[in-house]
Amino acid sequence: MRATLMYGAGDVRVEDVPTPTIQNPTDAIVRTVRACICGSDLHPYHSLPQLPQGATMGHELIGVVEEVGAEVKDFTPGDFVIVPFAASDNTCPICQDGFQTACPHVNFFGPGVGGQQAETARIPWADGTMVKVPGVDPATADESLLKSLLALSDVYLTGYHAAYMAEIKPGQSVTVIGDGAVGLSAVLAAKRMGAGQIILMGRHKARTDLGREWGATDVVEERGEEGISKVLELTGGYGSHAVLEAVGHMPAYEQAVGVVRPGGVISRVGVPQYDMAPVGFTSLFGKNARLAGGPAPVRAYLEQAIQEVLDGEIDPGRVFDRTIGIDEVPAGYKAMDDREALKVMIRF
Amino acid sequence: MRATLMYGAGDVRVEDVPTPTIQNPTDAIVRTVRACICGSDLHPYHSLPQLPQGATMGHELIGVVEEVGAEVKDFTPGDFVIVPFAASDNTCPICQDGFQTACPHVNFFGPGVGGQQAETARIPWADGTMVKVPGVDPATADESLLKSLLALSDVYLTGYHAAYMAEIKPGQSVTVIGDGAVGLSAVLAAKRMGAGQIILMGRHKARTDLGREWGATDVVEERGEEGISKVLELTGGYGSHAVLEAVGHMPAYEQAVGVVRPGGVISRVGVPQYDMAPVGFTSLFGKNARLAGGPAPVRAYLEQAIQEVLDGEIDPGRVFDRTIGIDEVPAGYKAMDDREALKVMIRF
Repeated sequence: MRATLMYGAGDVRVEDVPTPTIQNPTDAIVRTVRACICGSDLHPYHSLPQLPQGATMGHELIGVVEEVGAEVKDFTPGDFVIVPFAASDNTCPICQDGFQTACPHVNFFGPGVGGQQAETARIPWADGTMVKVPGVDPATADESLLKSLLALSDVYLTGYHAAYMAEIKPGQSVTVIGDGAVGLSAVLAAKRMGAGQIILMGRHKARTDLGREWGATDVVEERGEEGISKVLELTGGYGSHAVLEAVGHMPAYEQAVGVVRPGGVISRVGVPQYDMAPVGFTSLFGKNARLAGGPAPVRAYLEQAIQEVLDGEIDPGRVFDRTIGIDEVPAGYKAMDDREALKVMIRF
Repeated sequence: MRATLMYGAGDVRVEDVPTPTIQNPTDAIVRTVRACICGSDLHPYHSLPQLPQGATMGHELIGVVEEVGAEVKDFTPGDFVIVPFAASDNTCPICQDGFQTACPHVNFFGPGVGGQQAETARIPWADGTMVKVPGVDPATADESLLKSLLALSDVYLTGYHAAYMAEIKPGQSVTVIGDGAVGLSAVLAAKRMGAGQIILMGRHKARTDLGREWGATDVVEERGEEGISKVLELTGGYGSHAVLEAVGHMPAYEQAVGVVRPGGVISRVGVPQYDMAPVGFTSLFGKNARLAGGPAPVRAYLEQAIQEVLDGEIDPGRVFDRTIGIDEVPAGYKAMDDREALKVMIRF
């Protein structure tokens, strides 16, 4: 089968590799219908050391079940499924609490693990990981529906997680830091939770325009102290009740601390590229600001989100602004890295 | 009047000073009935630089209103009141959200500000700060009732704030770090919120015994990695849903990170003696652990807590294990610093 491998920073190749097979009785084999490239794939694209064997890539997938292991009970060949970016057993107490990305059996798909930018994928803990999409035939489904279903494997529900962990209440002021696909998804989720004001901090007009369509009431292009001042101005000097941080770098954290209202919450879904951060009296403690967030437990939110997509309530697939075939994946990485594309979908 | 002043580390004196008078039309003058010494008073007791003028001390008080400024509407002379450790206007949007300690008009009583370890005190923003105790005559009230009312000015409601910000749900596992008066108060608050398991990390038997009476199901004496292992053992390997951190030093933070369950919350009320702390993938982010807490907005909780004390539902005054007169205050500081006394009350 054709699969994407990364051999080092900037070195993405599509090659013929053996088609995966059942390894454990809890596995399923899924034929990919649509996959995509994630903003987080750009981290190894910038920094992966040279790997003579290459690392399989990709962690977002919708597809059709081809085969299931002996212990898989909930799926049969032909089922159309969404696969989240992390596998989990979905039965342990941590999964039952809704934090599947901290499951003792968690398997974060990523370089060398999973490999969903490929024609076929092996999904561990299939019953705990995958969710069926009822009543949709991917062969005849509308392209925009497929895009929105694919967006549920990671990007939309990562933005949703930011809003969910911020416990947004109707009428509240929300600031979203970052106008990438996750930031825009966070805008959409915040709007659906009833946010009264949504300030999007970003500077790419095509992106912030989609943000406005999805509910952003204000766009702040400035960063740092200047950006903080603008947000304070827009919030009567108090800052936002919820700050959804979809970047992961220290300047975004500092911006979040600057714009969060006393008693408010900073909810992070940008994977932190730092370990230590200010949390003392002058940053978080003095104003009772809270810090939340982490890798989105997509599995916890999938059923409800699938229904919302099928009902036409949300259209998170609009973050995909380019569609390519598997052999164009290297060009897809480049387009996202050059910020020519917001998010690239791969059609199989 | 007699008042407590600190002239430098370890140098506490009780002296005659001018009785405070109304300075602003929103002030009230309150005659002290009971005051006390706070664990946080020990910070300047260890580190205050030499001050030729001395700094007035104390931030916890119950007393009787003697005089009110022209703009004070809610109080008249003779009212018996509780004064929280911070003044606030209680009308701004931040106060209305319940975060009075981040009010733009906040006034943290502390060295040189307030001076409640004295026979009389001036209370700014009286209408926003003080709360009346209905139906109690302090001249004839039971001593244990006065102790419990005094405990509401800071210590109990600081422990309560830790539990409140942790959003404890019935049946959850809670770990309290620190067996000082605030930690014990956090145990009591967690129990009242329905915690199913309360693990108290502390090693002073007299204190942990009161913790057990108030609801601690387990006591862990060990600290650091050893303490973390014990808590994990007691929680099926998962850690606690809520960790109430009532110490403020980095080892307590690290302990909290070690024992918090994925998806759980660390709620801090020990004033952090650090600025930077680990918040990255391997500490908070990876397991979706949240960080909450700050200076307790005592004012937000007072009415309900007063009623609970008057109804005999809680007895937070039990943290006071020594009573002294104003002239014995220097000895009171020493007794708390030597850990001979848990918390010292001053009777006037």
